[in-house]
Amino acid sequence: MRDLVIGGSGFVGRNLTRRLQAQGHTVTVLDRIPDSTESFDGTCIIGDAQDPATVRAALETAAPETVYHLAANSDIQAGVADASLDFGDTLMTTIALRAVLPGSGVHRLVFASSSAIFGISQQPFSEESDEPPTPVSWYGKAKLASEFVLESLSAADPRLAILVVRFPNVVGPLATHGVVFDFVRRLRTDPTRLDVLGDGNQTKPYVHVAELIEGIEFFAASLPPGLKRINVGPPDVIDVKGIVEEVTGALNVTPAVSYQDSPFGWPGDVPRYSFDTSLMRREGFAIDTTSRQAVRRAAEDLAAELAQR
Amino acid sequence: MRDLVIGGSGFVGRNLTRRLQAQGHTVTVLDRIPDSTESFDGTCIIGDAQDPATVRAALETAAPETVYHLAANSDIQAGVADASLDFGDTLMTTIALRAVLPGSGVHRLVFASSSAIFGISQQPFSEESDEPPTPVSWYGKAKLASEFVLESLSAADPRLAILVVRFPNVVGPLATHGVVFDFVRRLRTDPTRLDVLGDGNQTKPYVHVAELIEGIEFFAASLPPGLKRINVGPPDVIDVKGIVEEVTGALNVTPAVSYQDSPFGWPGDVPRYSFDTSLMRREGFAIDTTSRQAVRRAAEDLAAELAQR
Repeated sequence: MRDLVIGGSGFVGRNLTRRLQAQGHTVTVLDRIPDSTESFDGTCIIGDAQDPATVRAALETAAPETVYHLAANSDIQAGVADASLDFGDTLMTTIALRAVLPGSGVHRLVFASSSAIFGISQQPFSEESDEPPTPVSWYGKAKLASEFVLESLSAADPRLAILVVRFPNVVGPLATHGVVFDFVRRLRTDPTRLDVLGDGNQTKPYVHVAELIEGIEFFAASLPPGLKRINVGPPDVIDVKGIVEEVTGALNVTPAVSYQDSPFGWPGDVPRYSFDTSLMRREGFAIDTTSRQAVRRAAEDLAAELAQR
Repeated sequence: MRDLVIGGSGFVGRNLTRRLQAQGHTVTVLDRIPDSTESFDGTCIIGDAQDPATVRAALETAAPETVYHLAANSDIQAGVADASLDFGDTLMTTIALRAVLPGSGVHRLVFASSSAIFGISQQPFSEESDEPPTPVSWYGKAKLASEFVLESLSAADPRLAILVVRFPNVVGPLATHGVVFDFVRRLRTDPTRLDVLGDGNQTKPYVHVAELIEGIEFFAASLPPGLKRINVGPPDVIDVKGIVEEVTGALNVTPAVSYQDSPFGWPGDVPRYSFDTSLMRREGFAIDTTSRQAVRRAAEDLAAELAQR
């Protein structure tokens, strides 16, 4: 099998390329930056996935059966301040791909969408809801707009199988960002204190990247033509105070922890949400690892990884 | 006939509502600001068209057969500096409409797209080109993304008739922005000098808003279910130096005119483009007024209008 992973040098991308290579796939990455970690040994094309000509050339080089589109601005906070990051890196990459994919011979497209498309809601977010999503962050808006762009691709190319996977918060090895990565890195520098954004009560689901990728594989394996949306997530949530407990436990440190008054970690933060994964379970895929267990495992992964750098 | 004009308080919207009312239609406007000009006597709902609930309520109030979606950030230069203007006002308004239109009973949707989706190209821009559009400005990117969102709406609701009209530069009465409006306003304040952005050689097609609206009416009248794209534009182009000649002629002033060295009027400006309107003409609609004539007529319209304020 030949795969093209757009945005393959990012956090989820790095984990995905390892997994695909372990299964014997021929993997090509298109990314603006090279994968600087040692364990990647595929082809990496350096280029901007916002440019249709670059994406077309990558498709010709890789001749993939499956394209994974993971390119996005991953710094949600930076995107709140500057919408051009999400508009460009998240949405225009999808539009470039939509422009050049028809006729390329690709059979299957997997797109990394996000629970951020839902914004703040009273109800757990389901794939089957009739309520229109109302994302808060430009990150969530760009992911939602990208889903519509892929609907238009599906209409134009009905034989293409498109899997839109809504990720919750993702943690694990080879991370480049996120709260667990941030806490581990800061506590390795100064194990005596930890300043936390927000009041510590922000409560969200966290999935370990290895289980997220298992979910992607599960749903991609039996994907029919057309577009399928699926929420992939853990059975529960964890608050930031719980994350602090697990990261300090994994690192065996006892910092003085300070919280802020605001329930929002940053402007555009969604302080709590829940994620309806009943469709995922009904279709036969389960994640039994709790959010707390995923965070603990990720903190241990990252502590070991950073100790080797 | 009942119409809902989203963004009806803007330049093209104001002209469109006058025309629809003159034809006996019942017109409802949804806009963030009221239409402050005297000649509008329909219903104006004040609200943000980025909010799906607001758009749904407007659809229920107006019960329109036809929806005109003209809401957009019209300040392309401001959008270059702050992508959130185009992301929000241009793209998210389209996404909100796409979310609530299915099932609303609307038969027809007219969307104001733009030649700005094409960016810089060697070839005249055609609806039938296989080349992917590569817009330069966030304005153009948001319009292009909106077209894909409407493709997804068409796929979800194939009985809906959707007309995507690509506008070139538009001039005429009730303007709120644009080069002709800007020149007229500044020359009324100081008829002795005119500082021009760019070197004066920027060359583009200009259509008078009255003829643009005739084109919209022409193509909307016989619109089948599905999505149709059409470039509506004049037979030729005019450069900025020519616009200066026509505006100063209309105002009967002789200012000292200064130009800059740069061929770009501002960052994100497209200095010259041509617009393929052969499909428009093949289908039986013609605009014979040249860009120069349209600019002259608009300058006269605006001079008379501003003299009355």
